[in-house]
Amino acid sequence: MTTDTPALLQNYLAGRWQAGSGPGTLLRDPVLGTGLARVSSGGLDLAEGFAFAREQGGRALRALSYRERAAMLAAAVKVLQANRDAYFEIATANSGTTNRDSGADIDGGIFTLGYYARQGETLGDARFLLDGDASRLGKDPAFQSQHIMVPTHGVALFINAFNFPSWGLWEKAGPALLSGVPVIVKPATATAWLTQRMVQDVVDAGVLPAGALSVVCGSSNGLLDALEPFDLVSFTGSAETAALIRSHPAVSAQSVRVNVEADSLNAALLAPGTRPDSEVFKLLVGEVVREMSTKSGQRCTAIRRVLVPAELYDAAAEAISAKLATLSVGNPRNKDVRMGSLVSREQLDTVQAGLARLRAETDLLHDGAGHALVDADPAVAACVGPTLLGTRRPQDARLVHEVEVFGPVATLLPYASLDEALATIRRGQGSLVTSVYSDDATFIADAALELASSHGRVHAISPDIAALNTGHGNVMPMSLHGGPGRAGGGEELGGLRALGFYHRRSALQASAAALERLAAGGHRIAG
Amino acid sequence: MTTDTPALLQNYLAGRWQAGSGPGTLLRDPVLGTGLARVSSGGLDLAEGFAFAREQGGRALRALSYRERAAMLAAAVKVLQANRDAYFEIATANSGTTNRDSGADIDGGIFTLGYYARQGETLGDARFLLDGDASRLGKDPAFQSQHIMVPTHGVALFINAFNFPSWGLWEKAGPALLSGVPVIVKPATATAWLTQRMVQDVVDAGVLPAGALSVVCGSSNGLLDALEPFDLVSFTGSAETAALIRSHPAVSAQSVRVNVEADSLNAALLAPGTRPDSEVFKLLVGEVVREMSTKSGQRCTAIRRVLVPAELYDAAAEAISAKLATLSVGNPRNKDVRMGSLVSREQLDTVQAGLARLRAETDLLHDGAGHALVDADPAVAACVGPTLLGTRRPQDARLVHEVEVFGPVATLLPYASLDEALATIRRGQGSLVTSVYSDDATFIADAALELASSHGRVHAISPDIAALNTGHGNVMPMSLHGGPGRAGGGEELGGLRALGFYHRRSALQASAAALERLAAGGHRIAG
Repeated sequence: MTTDTPALLQNYLAGRWQAGSGPGTLLRDPVLGTGLARVSSGGLDLAEGFAFAREQGGRALRALSYRERAAMLAAAVKVLQANRDAYFEIATANSGTTNRDSGADIDGGIFTLGYYARQGETLGDARFLLDGDASRLGKDPAFQSQHIMVPTHGVALFINAFNFPSWGLWEKAGPALLSGVPVIVKPATATAWLTQRMVQDVVDAGVLPAGALSVVCGSSNGLLDALEPFDLVSFTGSAETAALIRSHPAVSAQSVRVNVEADSLNAALLAPGTRPDSEVFKLLVGEVVREMSTKSGQRCTAIRRVLVPAELYDAAAEAISAKLATLSVGNPRNKDVRMGSLVSREQLDTVQAGLARLRAETDLLHDGAGHALVDADPAVAACVGPTLLGTRRPQDARLVHEVEVFGPVATLLPYASLDEALATIRRGQGSLVTSVYSDDATFIADAALELASSHGRVHAISPDIAALNTGHGNVMPMSLHGGPGRAGGGEELGGLRALGFYHRRSALQASAAALERLAAGGHRIAG
Repeated sequence: MTTDTPALLQNYLAGRWQAGSGPGTLLRDPVLGTGLARVSSGGLDLAEGFAFAREQGGRALRALSYRERAAMLAAAVKVLQANRDAYFEIATANSGTTNRDSGADIDGGIFTLGYYARQGETLGDARFLLDGDASRLGKDPAFQSQHIMVPTHGVALFINAFNFPSWGLWEKAGPALLSGVPVIVKPATATAWLTQRMVQDVVDAGVLPAGALSVVCGSSNGLLDALEPFDLVSFTGSAETAALIRSHPAVSAQSVRVNVEADSLNAALLAPGTRPDSEVFKLLVGEVVREMSTKSGQRCTAIRRVLVPAELYDAAAEAISAKLATLSVGNPRNKDVRMGSLVSREQLDTVQAGLARLRAETDLLHDGAGHALVDADPAVAACVGPTLLGTRRPQDARLVHEVEVFGPVATLLPYASLDEALATIRRGQGSLVTSVYSDDATFIADAALELASSHGRVHAISPDIAALNTGHGNVMPMSLHGGPGRAGGGEELGGLRALGFYHRRSALQASAAALERLAAGGHRIAG
């Protein structure tokens, strides 16, 4: 505990910086335990703030073309790049991450925003999209139907997760702002500082119209009540909170559009017949270790279940454990440390409780508790070593398919046949991503087809693209991010597909002459 | 009241005909008051039925190509056409509709199913869709991302409305079955007979695999509890029920995908500057009267609010009223009757209660109570004449923008400026459709763009396409059906766009070689 009373971070709402009331909540350094800042959303006039964003921000954004909004995003990228060092300092202090892990969040966010700046440029001077070609409504071509996509006249509320305070903001704000929809972001309290600072830099630089981007730090009380029918909510977090959002009267009764990205039990599948001395086997081992250790396993896309042919169970356990043993864990300020901290002591408690649950039906193949912490006090720091669990009878296990331990933890599962492996993967009830390891292009294509209905992404790693592949857990803006069922049922990114959430589709049925006038002002995308 | 105890309609679930338990609910003739049939879903093993559809039906459907499933739909069309006379008899008896109105439901449903049979044929022998082209994930083209669409491995539950027992089934089942997803339909109890009979005919004809199409008549108790993560719900009905569905634990906690089409306060907009002796004015008057009287105004797309330039308020009131006065209302078996019955006495009570509410802030321009019923007993029949309300101060009115009277009722609203008219229309908080009446193609294009964000469809009627236009309230399968906010936020139809709801999108990140293998089996659609 600390007796510090650090400064209260300001909220930006209704076009002005506003302090919340009361002492607020303290943000801590998860390695040192020191207080860093306080946040409070108490006493804010949310109705005023939402109305300001909706009316002033929305009108100003919609008055711009896609190209102009893309230029706006590009200007924001420059602002963020100029302040990059400060962001890394905040991330080290508030997230306890190594520079490499901080970079995945900070540079990943800036890259994604830049990607949408470039994508937006291709949409040109239009202010709306023509969704496919016009089609006849009868034999006579004089009367037709043309679908168009226009920005919704509402505000996009982002309720974000603690693990990506930068990327989580920009991967959503890029498509929203490019679409012409104003954004209000409510970052997770534990790591709100980086989000708040980035918004501050962009707002202060004046590259966005007033009302286009707002930030509320602290409690989310009242945010959902402020929603109106044309607003949107994009939520990243737990399935429990997602259910509360969907059931909230302002959402369920007004048909407010909701996108949810929840945690999931992502799998990695080593192809049947793989040899233990093969390159494919090594690729699996390397990727599993990378996924377990990146951001201390605090990624919703991380590999949680590793499926290997039964005859490779021991070899895989040994190879993964051997690599995990070399990982140094502790204070990210020490250059030798490969894996920093969890986000908070609360998360450390949650991870240890989850581990205890999984231990009831698994064996301990590599024990994270055996890792001595580097430059960190185990009584204070939220650091934890990587743990590999395993069970030789995955069919009898239940929790390993249901309980996600949001830390450096994975479970090794042997399979007897490919059908059994696919069925085991599907016991996750919908995931963000599964990776497949094979040197057989036909096997990869067939497995991907089988896995596609329950996964938002299938990532295939083969020796020919070993150096090129972008990683199981890395979310690239070109590809869909989201998954069905347990993963929340949402869709984000996927190139220009991301704009769909922020646009409203409408069919205009009119004379060919009127449709011709309309088409002159829009940018046609494939329908 | 009647003392008849007509037969209990059978449910079709788990591949067999099953009677529900208990006396069930009586379906009546809304004109004569006689009992027609009974329905009950009591005692059905819903979990068994859903599992059968999901496993047997889903597997069999997914084993077929789009072309094969399209042929299956075409075969169902033939079955329905062969039994068309029986459907018209059921509609007359159970819905109290004239043959023309019955045709909109029966032939409209068969037409829509046939449309998807033809659309499916264009997708060829594939079993999944390639969503756009592959895109590079870096500079090297050897590693790329390809989005695909595959049928969800779940069941589609339809909870349907009483006004379209035929079309409401087939406009949803066409896209679902074509996608490879089995269907369970729960028709609205009041008019469940026609839905049940159509399913029976198609099932008995053996044109669909076992488990592909099921019907449950009666209470919806337990249906939502049977849902699993990869299932879907498509609901047409009230916003209140929609909120209950969204909040149901099986839906909110499992991310079950939901489509809602709710009632809305659709508008018609006569362009500023229109002359009372113009063709455009006559087109508006004719369309308003047609919309009020078709199916006795029991269409979710019907015109509820008619916006005219202030100087045309009196002329419009007079012209619409004069046409309404000529409508004969009563027993649809009488060939002189233009407008049949509401669906039930309960609906008649609801309509009259709604009218009483709107009367508090409107003037009575044409009184439906003045229409003597033809061949129908006012003490028994659910018939009601058309009523035109109006107010010279629409800004002061609140209920006319909020309360939908689901019968032959509309309200005339004058406007002083186009901006005021657009703002008034938007007070509906999201609608299925607005129609625009003008002979100016540029005005139409501009107005449509303004209205698109709050409407799923904008229908423009101009003199040049007067004879070709498909009507404000008619839902064509080529165009999107659904609307934001109050209208439920759903999307149906719109050509092949309808298949999106029943498919899952997934991004496959893999070597170009693996993507090439994959692409060989899919049908590429624009992404």
